[in-house]
Amino acid sequence: MFEIDICSDLKLSGDEMIFIAGPCAVESEEQIIRTAKFLSSIGVRILRGGAYKPRTSPDNFQGLGEAGLRMLASAADQTGMAVVTEVMDTNDIGIVSKYSDILQVGSRNSQNFPLLRKLGRQKKPVLLKRGFGNTVDEFVNSSRYISREGNRNIIMVERGIRTFETSTRFTLDVSAVPVIKEKVDYPVLIDPSHAAGKRRFVQPLALAGIGSGADGLMVEVHPEPENALSDSEQQLDFQQFGQLYRMSQSMFSFMRGQSSLEVQKRME
Amino acid sequence: MFEIDICSDLKLSGDEMIFIAGPCAVESEEQIIRTAKFLSSIGVRILRGGAYKPRTSPDNFQGLGEAGLRMLASAADQTGMAVVTEVMDTNDIGIVSKYSDILQVGSRNSQNFPLLRKLGRQKKPVLLKRGFGNTVDEFVNSSRYISREGNRNIIMVERGIRTFETSTRFTLDVSAVPVIKEKVDYPVLIDPSHAAGKRRFVQPLALAGIGSGADGLMVEVHPEPENALSDSEQQLDFQQFGQLYRMSQSMFSFMRGQSSLEVQKRME
Amino acid sequence: MFEIDICSDLKLSGDEMIFIAGPCAVESEEQIIRTAKFLSSIGVRILRGGAYKPRTSPDNFQGLGEAGLRMLASAADQTGMAVVTEVMDTNDIGIVSKYSDILQVGSRNSQNFPLLRKLGRQKKPVLLKRGFGNTVDEFVNSSRYISREGNRNIIMVERGIRTFETSTRFTLDVSAVPVIKEKVDYPVLIDPSHAAGKRRFVQPLALAGIGSGADGLMVEVHPEPENALSDSEQQLDFQQFGQLYRMSQSMFSFMRGQSSLEVQKRME
Amino acid sequence: MFEIDICSDLKLSGDEMIFIAGPCAVESEEQIIRTAKFLSSIGVRILRGGAYKPRTSPDNFQGLGEAGLRMLASAADQTGMAVVTEVMDTNDIGIVSKYSDILQVGSRNSQNFPLLRKLGRQKKPVLLKRGFGNTVDEFVNSSRYISREGNRNIIMVERGIRTFETSTRFTLDVSAVPVIKEKVDYPVLIDPSHAAGKRRFVQPLALAGIGSGADGLMVEVHPEPENALSDSEQQLDFQQFGQLYRMSQSMFSFMRGQSSLEVQKRME
Repeated sequence: MFEIDICSDLKLSGDEMIFIAGPCAVESEEQIIRTAKFLSSIGVRILRGGAYKPRTSPDNFQGLGEAGLRMLASAADQTGMAVVTEVMDTNDIGIVSKYSDILQVGSRNSQNFPLLRKLGRQKKPVLLKRGFGNTVDEFVNSSRYISREGNRNIIMVERGIRTFETSTRFTLDVSAVPVIKEKVDYPVLIDPSHAAGKRRFVQPLALAGIGSGADGLMVEVHPEPENALSDSEQQLDFQQFGQLYRMSQSMFSFMRGQSSLEVQKRME
Repeated sequence: MFEIDICSDLKLSGDEMIFIAGPCAVESEEQIIRTAKFLSSIGVRILRGGAYKPRTSPDNFQGLGEAGLRMLASAADQTGMAVVTEVMDTNDIGIVSKYSDILQVGSRNSQNFPLLRKLGRQKKPVLLKRGFGNTVDEFVNSSRYISREGNRNIIMVERGIRTFETSTRFTLDVSAVPVIKEKVDYPVLIDPSHAAGKRRFVQPLALAGIGSGADGLMVEVHPEPENALSDSEQQLDFQQFGQLYRMSQSMFSFMRGQSSLEVQKRME
Repeated sequence: MFEIDICSDLKLSGDEMIFIAGPCAVESEEQIIRTAKFLSSIGVRILRGGAYKPRTSPDNFQGLGEAGLRMLASAADQTGMAVVTEVMDTNDIGIVSKYSDILQVGSRNSQNFPLLRKLGRQKKPVLLKRGFGNTVDEFVNSSRYISREGNRNIIMVERGIRTFETSTRFTLDVSAVPVIKEKVDYPVLIDPSHAAGKRRFVQPLALAGIGSGADGLMVEVHPEPENALSDSEQQLDFQQFGQLYRMSQSMFSFMRGQSSLEVQKRME
Repeated sequence: MFEIDICSDLKLSGDEMIFIAGPCAVESEEQIIRTAKFLSSIGVRILRGGAYKPRTSPDNFQGLGEAGLRMLASAADQTGMAVVTEVMDTNDIGIVSKYSDILQVGSRNSQNFPLLRKLGRQKKPVLLKRGFGNTVDEFVNSSRYISREGNRNIIMVERGIRTFETSTRFTLDVSAVPVIKEKVDYPVLIDPSHAAGKRRFVQPLALAGIGSGADGLMVEVHPEPENALSDSEQQLDFQQFGQLYRMSQSMFSFMRGQSSLEVQKRME
């Protein structure tokens, strides 16, 4: 069973649900600190927030860059949370590592092999998102670009793939969870926010992910989703997130309990 | 909330999980009766089994036809189960109705509009599978071909869609569950067997489906899966099915309990 | 090389380009006769037009039924054209055969196996469209449901498949042409209209189809596209069609000439 | 109409077909020089060949790196050809620019925005491949990351997208050609090799691309395809390439002639 050291007092081991939450993008010190305090108060231990944002169009908000990284670090300091944020280029690994506990590879860079290789030579854990055009087999191969260089602290995230269906932003491929788990021993998380694209579908997709055997969730939450500078439609507000968090935790415990029960039943 | 009369002593209402199970195809009297007795003994109330089988190639086993229907009816008689089986052509509605309690429209006929229209004029409930190339919007429109003619006893089944991913047979689109439920008030089931294509992925997909809010499951089970004449790789044996059944029921109850808890919490 | 008898004075043999054109749906006697006269005047020999229309929603225009068939037949009589129109149900084969020279299976019925089987026992040629969710392998297997019953007069039509791309209605899969031709010896046509969804993309897709080696085209044309009762956006007007027709014919001749040249070159 | 300066004596302007050819990867000095001499002898002016290869698995041949770049440059020197080769990382732009006339962005980096931005600040033209999971709209937006920084010498290449079809490696989306041309004024090429995945389908896809209005082709050719270290199945040998080259050129001229004819016809 995997065991990933995030920082001195945070290990991911499969016994507890892994929960990563925070806004799509860091927008201001006030926004990220408010979010971190809320999350921390209900028990979430890892804060997400984009400082470098890969956006389809160059006209859209591209993130606050290093200023955003500093805000994230400040929010982490004030709450004791660990931080994960995206690194989009090999040249940014140094600066992102300075502020972030976990280095995220986004969906659009899932086959950026120079980036993966260089992350494989870092000490910090890597959160690898599945490319929305990639098969699970390719996704697992991408993780091997990292592990081959020595870094085996990898967190895999399924976040939806491109299909013909248009009622959600992407189609969450829950089968990826058991398929990945047959091939590598890393935690597999579900990101229901990017798959849903609409906040009312986030909870069903999150619970579906846990049902499929995921080790945790990565969810977008924002103090005022309607004013968010990116992904406004899919971010939860604090109340919605609180409900999702409680239900997910219960369901995760339920799932682990069920598994033990079944093992016992088969032995009898 | 939906309420569907299957037969005198079986109503589907959303309070209890809907469970449909049985072999891909009816292969012999012994096979279907053995399966029905097992299923009935653990509490499953609706038996599936194909007598008319839509197969990609004309060289493959096409089902036993009316002989298969009679075997299904006999299994139902001996166990008190209700029966659902596929009708592939408008001309077969009469004969299938004679033996079956629920009339199934398969994935490949999900936009066979003359068939849907004629089923809309029947008294028996219709189980409508989503076409693997159809959007949810098209799927819901297909149900309207039935309801428009007067028959509102419709059960919707998500069974996976065509995508580029090849590690599973189809990609189960769990988001279809909440999307459908916004548009029509019918029970929505998940068929994890056809999506998985491999039996070891059936359970994770089934639980994912319940997590997404599905009202039940439709699962393939066979006394000896390795000898099945069709879909051999994806059918569960009795032991595997028993485990899936127990876990699914617990999880379904858990989900319903959670929902009430949350409603209560928001009211306080 | 294939040879298909359409009627006494029309054989399809691969020497000449096969061109099928006409409105999406038969809407009135005036509309279909006007179209037929135009098409006939420039050399098109096969008229298309839907009398039974498979529409996503039951609220949309469903075609004129037998009245539409009679109008088609009348247009054919007045121009000497052959007619192709869709049959959506096994029960309609008789009536459609009475009026139509070629029996069309639409994309949504491409795996309607009872329909295919029964068409395999007819004397008239069958035009089989690829299901938009079907692989080429499935498409070829569908043709085998027809040929197995004795009818080998089959015309295969690629009309676009479902993908994540949204700038066209479907994604025309031009590679289907050489792939099909490796497996069966039937004429393979391209339907650029349904793939394009917008009339300005019809010509590039048509010429792409001929470039890929298609034996001909099936194109939607309407006297007043903007007033069409279905597929209004993708039908060409007479002038646009005339241009497409001339360019396609030239390109088809060019392609055949090139092939002979190359064969000669390799022999020298 | 676009006009792109490649080097002192090579401009791309839309009057002549653009033809880029060469092996998937540079494997040895002998291999690339032999290929360049052949290509140059029949009239091809731009040589392709990968020195940095993005491969799904880290176990596969990753290219010769700078040694490969030197071999390419040497082949170019000996033949007067221009060179295009892939740059996979912002840090490699300098070294690749030293040897290559055109900087290629591969399909997997089509949304690598830091790379696109930095290429936008280079003097050399950029060849941008469509991501196999990207819509045309995203593809065009990627080109805007380059042009926004000042570099408008962009060549767009459609090379197939991910779909459910498995008989070809990717599904060539020929409709991308007219769709892109409505949005930006850059040359649009078709890469039939990666879409086909099998060499016998390269020619039909190439001609389909020209039919759709493409300004040229990018094709893989290898002195001994069966011994190639990557993409062995899809590379053409010299004879096959020669035939493809002749047919493509004829067809391109034919297409341009047709367009003028039609313009004339409409004016009369």
